[in-house]
Amino acid sequence: MVSEDQLIERVRRRFPSLRGSLRVGIGDDAAVLRPGAGTEWVVTTDVFFENVHFLRKVHPPKAVGYKALARATSDIAAMGARARQFFLTLGLPDACAGAWLDGFLDGLALAARRFGLILAGGDTTKYPLVMASLTVLGEIGQGKAILRSGAKPGDLLCVSGTLGEAELGLRLIQRNLHRQKRWLKLLKKQHYPEPRLTLGKWLAAHRTATSMIDTSDGLSTDLGHICKASGVGAIVWAEKVPVARVPAELQRLGLDPLELALNGGEDYELLFTVAKKFSGRLPRKVAGVPVSVIGEITRDKKVMLKGPDGNSAPLQPRGWDPFRKKG
Amino acid sequence: MVSEDQLIERVRRRFPSLRGSLRVGIGDDAAVLRPGAGTEWVVTTDVFFENVHFLRKVHPPKAVGYKALARATSDIAAMGARARQFFLTLGLPDACAGAWLDGFLDGLALAARRFGLILAGGDTTKYPLVMASLTVLGEIGQGKAILRSGAKPGDLLCVSGTLGEAELGLRLIQRNLHRQKRWLKLLKKQHYPEPRLTLGKWLAAHRTATSMIDTSDGLSTDLGHICKASGVGAIVWAEKVPVARVPAELQRLGLDPLELALNGGEDYELLFTVAKKFSGRLPRKVAGVPVSVIGEITRDKKVMLKGPDGNSAPLQPRGWDPFRKKG
Repeated sequence: MVSEDQLIERVRRRFPSLRGSLRVGIGDDAAVLRPGAGTEWVVTTDVFFENVHFLRKVHPPKAVGYKALARATSDIAAMGARARQFFLTLGLPDACAGAWLDGFLDGLALAARRFGLILAGGDTTKYPLVMASLTVLGEIGQGKAILRSGAKPGDLLCVSGTLGEAELGLRLIQRNLHRQKRWLKLLKKQHYPEPRLTLGKWLAAHRTATSMIDTSDGLSTDLGHICKASGVGAIVWAEKVPVARVPAELQRLGLDPLELALNGGEDYELLFTVAKKFSGRLPRKVAGVPVSVIGEITRDKKVMLKGPDGNSAPLQPRGWDPFRKKG
Repeated sequence: MVSEDQLIERVRRRFPSLRGSLRVGIGDDAAVLRPGAGTEWVVTTDVFFENVHFLRKVHPPKAVGYKALARATSDIAAMGARARQFFLTLGLPDACAGAWLDGFLDGLALAARRFGLILAGGDTTKYPLVMASLTVLGEIGQGKAILRSGAKPGDLLCVSGTLGEAELGLRLIQRNLHRQKRWLKLLKKQHYPEPRLTLGKWLAAHRTATSMIDTSDGLSTDLGHICKASGVGAIVWAEKVPVARVPAELQRLGLDPLELALNGGEDYELLFTVAKKFSGRLPRKVAGVPVSVIGEITRDKKVMLKGPDGNSAPLQPRGWDPFRKKG
């Protein structure tokens, strides 16, 4: 039987020690962070549950570790902040304390390196199911965080990358098609989503975006969050939505690229608004990530979808909600 | 079926809105905090699991909410910091989304008011068992945090309050004696522990303590943490340990006050060291909480207990470790 101290030591060895603004890290009652002059802290928490957010038999442990941190860090990207430190609270069955934990830590360490994050503390507890609760801290210049609430009528609606790819992977898993070699590459975004930190920082530094959110729950739901917070509506131009490529064979099975893009969660792209007069400043790509203009903010508080036929219909929020969907 | 948005709204309504250093709270991708000039942030995370840390049939929902936050806040007290904001990640079975959640939020709100904490964000997820993961942030003057690592040979070892009371409550629960009216008051510290925030701040402000930890795992284990971090040993004088009062009837059932005090967890008292020359500065009480000198830091890296007979023996760490004890 492994002890909690041994577990903590195994986690600690995998991560670099004190650096930058972290004065006291793992091993004391709490971490101590010294803020830079003129900055604010951006803080988010996110939980990653076995059987709710991932399946131990389907998601490799490395992907579980990577994705747990990527999901949480995406909220830092969505504020335009720089990722700094993270805290890991881990519930772990005995059966996962060996090779599974090594794989999980591999993924977690890979994500931390990519995102520029330092492990600052955490907690481990024995538990019948894997549970990873992450707290991520970011830093940003005072007053520069991009909120959900700043969208104005007439602003252009923009999104990074493509939409629906993570959901496509999930659907393959649900249909038990994910073990077929030819579809393996379609699982990448489901397993290893990429928080758009560089784009987020670029938008904050250039004061380009009036509002921003990450597409964790799906475009239809997340756009609703922006509209509600800003007291506005929006129209999405269906043909401008950057849908993920879905092979014809899978489309014939009923996997529709636009439906996946509108309602599929877990892409962790940035959905943001830009004042029309600044639209000329918007590059087509930032750090290799494409940016698409997909619609416009409206005054009338409805979220609409304008189809290729020119007709508009309400866009219902059909994205991820763990309390509505059956776990 | 309740939706996640409805749940978040129910949580949000129970807590006051923006105040002080919190610029952006619940409802955006992340919270934004503006640090005071010349301060550092103290950050801790703690998880509270059904069947590991509490039993739904035994612990009232109000006590679960209160204790979940008290446990985490105790780590802020143990650094000497002022408690500021907290984040709640909640896993909740459908059966708990009604009256149980109301009770839980009652306890959480009571704790937040007492400790001076603002709810700054969080996350809710449907889950078969209750899981509360808390992140608590505190603030302290630069370089003033009291670490585990500063104890020096010759320092006096001190502890607040009494020890063993929370464990006494747990043992009553384990023996199914907790429903007997006459023992009800002995459950108070098991259900409603008090993080020693005022004492912690006093010690930091007066630069009195050389090291500090909270007794979450029990004196024998937590003293080991201080000794290991400081590279020292310690001797505890058994007759000076402020043991909890255990009624004679319960002592006859094998509940020994000293054993409870040495190895019982969850008291959340402050265990700290003071340079001998400053011992005269140490009041007997701070904000009504007694302070006892219970031993001395030694050079030889062993943790010893000196009994009433004058003989010393090693004090084994026999406190709480969820990976050693069977859940």
